[in-house]
Amino acid sequence: MSSENEGLRLRRTKSVTRAEEIQKQEARIRKSQPDKPCHRPRDSLFSWSSDFTNFTGFVNWAFLLLFMGGIRLLLENLIKYGVRVDPEQWVIVLTGRGEGGPEHPSLYLFLYSIVPVSVCLLIEKGLAEDILITRAGIIAHIMNLCLLVTLPMVVIHFKAAAFSLMGATMVCFLYSVLFLKLWSYIQVNAWCRNSCHPPKTTLRRQSVSLSQLQLPDNGHTLPETEPDDISLVRYPDNLNMKDLAFFIFAPTLCYELNFPRTERIRKRFLLKRLVEVVVLIQLMMCLFQQWIIPSVKNSLIPFSNMDVVKATERLLKLSIPNHLVWLIFFYLMFHSFLNLMGEILHFADRNFYCDWWNANNIDIFWRTWNMPVHRWAVRHLYIPLVEIGYSKTMASTCVFFISAFFHEYLVSVPLQTFKIWAFLGMMGQIPLSILCHTVEKKFGPRWGNIIVWASLILGQPLCIMMYYHDYVITHFGEALIDSYGTV
Amino acid sequence: MSSENEGLRLRRTKSVTRAEEIQKQEARIRKSQPDKPCHRPRDSLFSWSSDFTNFTGFVNWAFLLLFMGGIRLLLENLIKYGVRVDPEQWVIVLTGRGEGGPEHPSLYLFLYSIVPVSVCLLIEKGLAEDILITRAGIIAHIMNLCLLVTLPMVVIHFKAAAFSLMGATMVCFLYSVLFLKLWSYIQVNAWCRNSCHPPKTTLRRQSVSLSQLQLPDNGHTLPETEPDDISLVRYPDNLNMKDLAFFIFAPTLCYELNFPRTERIRKRFLLKRLVEVVVLIQLMMCLFQQWIIPSVKNSLIPFSNMDVVKATERLLKLSIPNHLVWLIFFYLMFHSFLNLMGEILHFADRNFYCDWWNANNIDIFWRTWNMPVHRWAVRHLYIPLVEIGYSKTMASTCVFFISAFFHEYLVSVPLQTFKIWAFLGMMGQIPLSILCHTVEKKFGPRWGNIIVWASLILGQPLCIMMYYHDYVITHFGEALIDSYGTV
Repeated sequence: MSSENEGLRLRRTKSVTRAEEIQKQEARIRKSQPDKPCHRPRDSLFSWSSDFTNFTGFVNWAFLLLFMGGIRLLLENLIKYGVRVDPEQWVIVLTGRGEGGPEHPSLYLFLYSIVPVSVCLLIEKGLAEDILITRAGIIAHIMNLCLLVTLPMVVIHFKAAAFSLMGATMVCFLYSVLFLKLWSYIQVNAWCRNSCHPPKTTLRRQSVSLSQLQLPDNGHTLPETEPDDISLVRYPDNLNMKDLAFFIFAPTLCYELNFPRTERIRKRFLLKRLVEVVVLIQLMMCLFQQWIIPSVKNSLIPFSNMDVVKATERLLKLSIPNHLVWLIFFYLMFHSFLNLMGEILHFADRNFYCDWWNANNIDIFWRTWNMPVHRWAVRHLYIPLVEIGYSKTMASTCVFFISAFFHEYLVSVPLQTFKIWAFLGMMGQIPLSILCHTVEKKFGPRWGNIIVWASLILGQPLCIMMYYHDYVITHFGEALIDSYGTV
Repeated sequence: MSSENEGLRLRRTKSVTRAEEIQKQEARIRKSQPDKPCHRPRDSLFSWSSDFTNFTGFVNWAFLLLFMGGIRLLLENLIKYGVRVDPEQWVIVLTGRGEGGPEHPSLYLFLYSIVPVSVCLLIEKGLAEDILITRAGIIAHIMNLCLLVTLPMVVIHFKAAAFSLMGATMVCFLYSVLFLKLWSYIQVNAWCRNSCHPPKTTLRRQSVSLSQLQLPDNGHTLPETEPDDISLVRYPDNLNMKDLAFFIFAPTLCYELNFPRTERIRKRFLLKRLVEVVVLIQLMMCLFQQWIIPSVKNSLIPFSNMDVVKATERLLKLSIPNHLVWLIFFYLMFHSFLNLMGEILHFADRNFYCDWWNANNIDIFWRTWNMPVHRWAVRHLYIPLVEIGYSKTMASTCVFFISAFFHEYLVSVPLQTFKIWAFLGMMGQIPLSILCHTVEKKFGPRWGNIIVWASLILGQPLCIMMYYHDYVITHFGEALIDSYGTV
């Protein structure tokens, strides 16, 4: 049997060789003809059967077309509106001067922010020194934090005319950040207090003795000299103004007693980030004055009239500069500014963003684009809630609602229009996430990523349009739409 | 010595382990702290030092933005111009009806094209049968070919009013293709005649005996049965109308006596290509009527007034639909139409284009985007010239000038404006190629590719604008610019 099989195989191999031989002979015959043949059986590259997949040139093509489209839009904008960039207007936008007299409520609110921070430190001191009982401390903290959040709302509401939009936004932003930072500060100090009640006087700035620690498994001898840099600050030595001030300025929302530090300030790096901050702020201002404001004004009438085709065209037109500004803002805030602060303060952890641009799902985007907030939410809200005994879904929902609240806060308070578009936008992330999952499963991760991008590019200008529309109607009445719309 | 070295190495290893140990200890100390530290030294992803390079999400981003930009331009166009697509206009453009009475000179010229083809075959027959001497045959061929090229020029010049632009272009295109095909036919037959003077009657449809050929080196025995499919047509059996007609319709410009053939017609493939041809022709027509014609008309005044900013904006605006139409035309012509013809005629070599989209240099683009013409130029112009004794540079220049001539021919004759913009465009390829080489060397192949794309996207609309401008001025006078420009 086996020899027969072998014979068969041999014969087959032979016949294959023979067929190949014939093909080769044929090719040779063709080649030897006097008509110099130049054709041979081949597929076109776009045919599936060609197995050709190198279309990298089209990536360059796409970026080139985008760049050219950008240049054209710039020229079109210049021809249509002329130069709208006006430095004087910036100063007014920034300081609010000229609208509400010589008052600078934004500046006062900025300076006032030192009060709740100091109060927080004092309460912590009181708790650490056992002057305050825990319950009283917690109540005091809650009152302090609530006051912190409501203060800008109240002041902006009653002094609306004296605030510029930019000033009000900055104040709300600062107070939101302070709220998150102080929450973290209070919670971390509570953890420290609960974990150990060390004697208060003897442990000041004491370095941790290594012998207290568990030895590694392989039983190596300990280093002979105790290195200086492992000397750690321990509770309650951290409760001083210098430490708290460092945390307030540090590019993080999560407090810890011993932040990882860099050894030196890289001067070139610092200079680059500084130049970026200065240039990009100017660029954003220019884009706003030259591009976004005229686009938003132009789209008011189609939105009011519910003209779908024109409104869509306007929305798409607005989405490009808006997205550009958002990208610049992201880079400016999360790369240039936070790295600048980190470099100045020797703060070593620069993980301010992950690769959200590759996110295949909107969930991943929310978990990666803003790492300071994400880490804060996980460390100070999600994990504590789970540890108390809430389910993971419950904890996620809670994180989600706090996030939605702050988004609404940062938009509604400065604009003085208490609509819920931003909140609805956040809520819309839930069906969007389900859509992403479905699309990713059906068409592959690339399409999930495309949906994430589409929601980023289109969702924001939609919200902006909603708010602007309501803002104009609330503040100037419907009669003003016409005069505004034609500008 | 060696033991000392070893000791040193050992000590070093130990000290390294000790440093690592300390680091580990430190991390462990940090971890064991009650403040639950969450920071560790890290770089931001955009920092060079992070070594992060996965930005694939931005490719999706670019294509999405392009798509959205396209949708917006479509909407803007619809809002501005309304629906301009008009099937009746197509018929007029295609047939030229309504301008020059009931004559159809394009159709007559199409039908007349059979005459020079038949004349060419007759001359070849005469040469093969030794009725004509070689010199007389060559002179007859040259006269026939010259007549072929000049006929459309003369007829269109004297009957300009009766031709539609589309009709005239199609005629010029057909006659150019016929010129190249007949050149190839004549040259290949001449090669065959020169290589061997076989007895004329005995070799009819004779199959080549394999024993005439050299055996392969490994000394295998020859196949017992001589396969039928190696039976090849040999000169002068090819000199008949059926063979020539096949070549005229075949999707190639290079004649050979035995084209590689496919075994069967793939019906699905055929149907797909047919649908593509029908749909894409309609799409191109729509884009022309709806987008290109209004854009070109709008850009006339800025071009006349030499208004640089407005003209640039118009050029960029025109470049997008023009480039789109060119891409559709490329796909329609080189993939759909030529594959359709190939499938119907069992023509197996479908290498109608190479991957020009990845070309890093404009030279490579010219060598890859139009394979039929490129192969014709190499086989029938470049190699023969080099074989005669011309230098390679001389031969390249010659190919280049013939190419420039046909570009000019295909544009100037239908438009009836004998300007040299297309010719100058072709000449511009030489400095462009040098630029590509320099850029590629300095900045890498990606930038070479980008320059190729930029020249493709911007070069064509510039030429179109030039021709349109001259066309309007020549045919309607400068007075008409105003009325046209405001449409």
